[in-house]
Amino acid sequence: MIENTFYTDESTQGRYELFDLGDLLVEENAETLRGATLAFRTLGELNANKDNAVLVTTWFSGTGKVMEDVYIGPTHALDPRKYFIVIVDQIGSGTSSSPHNTPGAQSMAKFPQVRIGDDVRAQHKLITEHLGITELALVVGGSMGGQQVYEWAVRYPDMVKRAASIAATARISHHQVTFTQALQEALTSDPRWNGGWYQDGTDVRDGMDRMAKIVATLGWSREFYQEERWRTILGMSSPDDFINGVMKAYFEPMDPNALLTQIWKWQRADVSRHTGGDLAAALQRIQAKTMIMPISHDLFFPPNEMEADAALIRDATVRVIESKEGHFALNGFEPAYIEQVDTILRELLSH
Amino acid sequence: MIENTFYTDESTQGRYELFDLGDLLVEENAETLRGATLAFRTLGELNANKDNAVLVTTWFSGTGKVMEDVYIGPTHALDPRKYFIVIVDQIGSGTSSSPHNTPGAQSMAKFPQVRIGDDVRAQHKLITEHLGITELALVVGGSMGGQQVYEWAVRYPDMVKRAASIAATARISHHQVTFTQALQEALTSDPRWNGGWYQDGTDVRDGMDRMAKIVATLGWSREFYQEERWRTILGMSSPDDFINGVMKAYFEPMDPNALLTQIWKWQRADVSRHTGGDLAAALQRIQAKTMIMPISHDLFFPPNEMEADAALIRDATVRVIESKEGHFALNGFEPAYIEQVDTILRELLSH
Repeated sequence: MIENTFYTDESTQGRYELFDLGDLLVEENAETLRGATLAFRTLGELNANKDNAVLVTTWFSGTGKVMEDVYIGPTHALDPRKYFIVIVDQIGSGTSSSPHNTPGAQSMAKFPQVRIGDDVRAQHKLITEHLGITELALVVGGSMGGQQVYEWAVRYPDMVKRAASIAATARISHHQVTFTQALQEALTSDPRWNGGWYQDGTDVRDGMDRMAKIVATLGWSREFYQEERWRTILGMSSPDDFINGVMKAYFEPMDPNALLTQIWKWQRADVSRHTGGDLAAALQRIQAKTMIMPISHDLFFPPNEMEADAALIRDATVRVIESKEGHFALNGFEPAYIEQVDTILRELLSH
Repeated sequence: MIENTFYTDESTQGRYELFDLGDLLVEENAETLRGATLAFRTLGELNANKDNAVLVTTWFSGTGKVMEDVYIGPTHALDPRKYFIVIVDQIGSGTSSSPHNTPGAQSMAKFPQVRIGDDVRAQHKLITEHLGITELALVVGGSMGGQQVYEWAVRYPDMVKRAASIAATARISHHQVTFTQALQEALTSDPRWNGGWYQDGTDVRDGMDRMAKIVATLGWSREFYQEERWRTILGMSSPDDFINGVMKAYFEPMDPNALLTQIWKWQRADVSRHTGGDLAAALQRIQAKTMIMPISHDLFFPPNEMEADAALIRDATVRVIESKEGHFALNGFEPAYIEQVDTILRELLSH
């Protein structure tokens, strides 16, 4: 267990609460994560009918902070004046239970291997037992957050009225498995990684920096590089300035074990685990009105893979978000991105 | 200097000759590569007019062997019964002068940093002084070979009658720079790399394997993974089987320093070095009838970047090669690929 104030300081994470999960059975591995916690924050109020709750999930390396800042507010579809919005940080996010903040026998390299399904079961406990919610007007998330959306809609079909998956598929592709393995290997090949037993996350800076560069090759679109959007959108002065000042700087304060916990989940997300590998059967369980929202230039979860999911869901609509940032458009660098998201979510919420 | 029979055995490389370049000035670095050699092979005969010579260049990790096997023969546009075909392996290819086969003071990590321009000057010497050729009916190559094609056409415009660049741009993109840096870092972060002073290339297997996986994420197209073409085209039984049996196995016998020498060149290819950074001015020097041949699903050198080059060349035609393999279609796994190449090159050679 090591201290990392990046995940605890209000200046970096805003305000969040910790929900005590008690002992969480990590289902498929049949291991119990003891004293597990979920970091969450709520905005708005639950109405009397308890039918205005919106669950927002988080992506790889993100926490509730970016979701709150980019996606939620009175100018957005996710308006706290109308909805009771619950943002939950995934396990391994650094804020919720993660290797570095877990004491004792499950600390650091001994942290259990958690799946998206474990996250969703933990979130279900928070939503139902702690917050007293039995129906979700919407579950929405991007990237790994979208993987959680699919898991929610398949695992708890009665509870999820609407689902919106932004830049995520229901089952990880072989391409993403290969890519995420490259990220893992960049981190774990650093000698100072030391099998997960570093003294401080920054010990693993070399591995983290290599990972950041690999992330940059697919996280942004080719057009992002072609049009030098690192200059116009991000205000960086050169490609090196962009890699150092955006990509490496972004990951540097994070915990390497936390990132690896997330990557392990990311590369195994697959709702067809519920149906013996039959993806169509899994997606047919979904009762939610579903919005499938690919990002036009996404190299992680390309539109045609998301459209293939949509074709297997009873009530799914595909709305492509146009953005030349590619996958990282999710971070809301451009007003045009979040305007499209808001329009699509308003359409979904109006039905 | 270490022995690597992969580069010298006829069973792996076919038959090639070595041309003694003597002392090659590595131009921009003002260093002299002493006792430099170029590996080359010729097929067919130079005609009396000396106007049927075709120069074929090589790509990253490739040598003349794959060019000979895939692109040349009586059924192909590059027919040795009609043309005198010269295939030249690039410096750092492992067969031509490379870190591991250079003795003495410039061996291994002390090998000079060579650019595409140095390669083309060396090839020019072979072509003119050794082979007595003053005119090239065609210069053709793919990927880094295409980078050499551009360099030839800009540097020696009077000599190059026709030029064909397959899957390559005239100036490297920022995206490719980032990607190739990730490859370098995968190799050089291996502790057994030891600053380039390993005892045997296989010492650096971990770094090579990591590099192979990163190459796999962009070298093949997303459709290659989506459609499990590693099964149908390559005959592999699973994604892991493909990564181990194709990607890692391909690079394993190669020399890490040789690959790094090539990557360093790859990420600096830029014909606008001749014109102070003005790409249009450089490409306007080209007198060759030029064929620009992107591969439809290429994530290294996407069609729109190649089309942008074509727009700056006086007599350039773009012909997109359709292949779902992406960049690695170059290796000729599919008959349909080489058939398209042959059709396009026949069209070019007919004028």
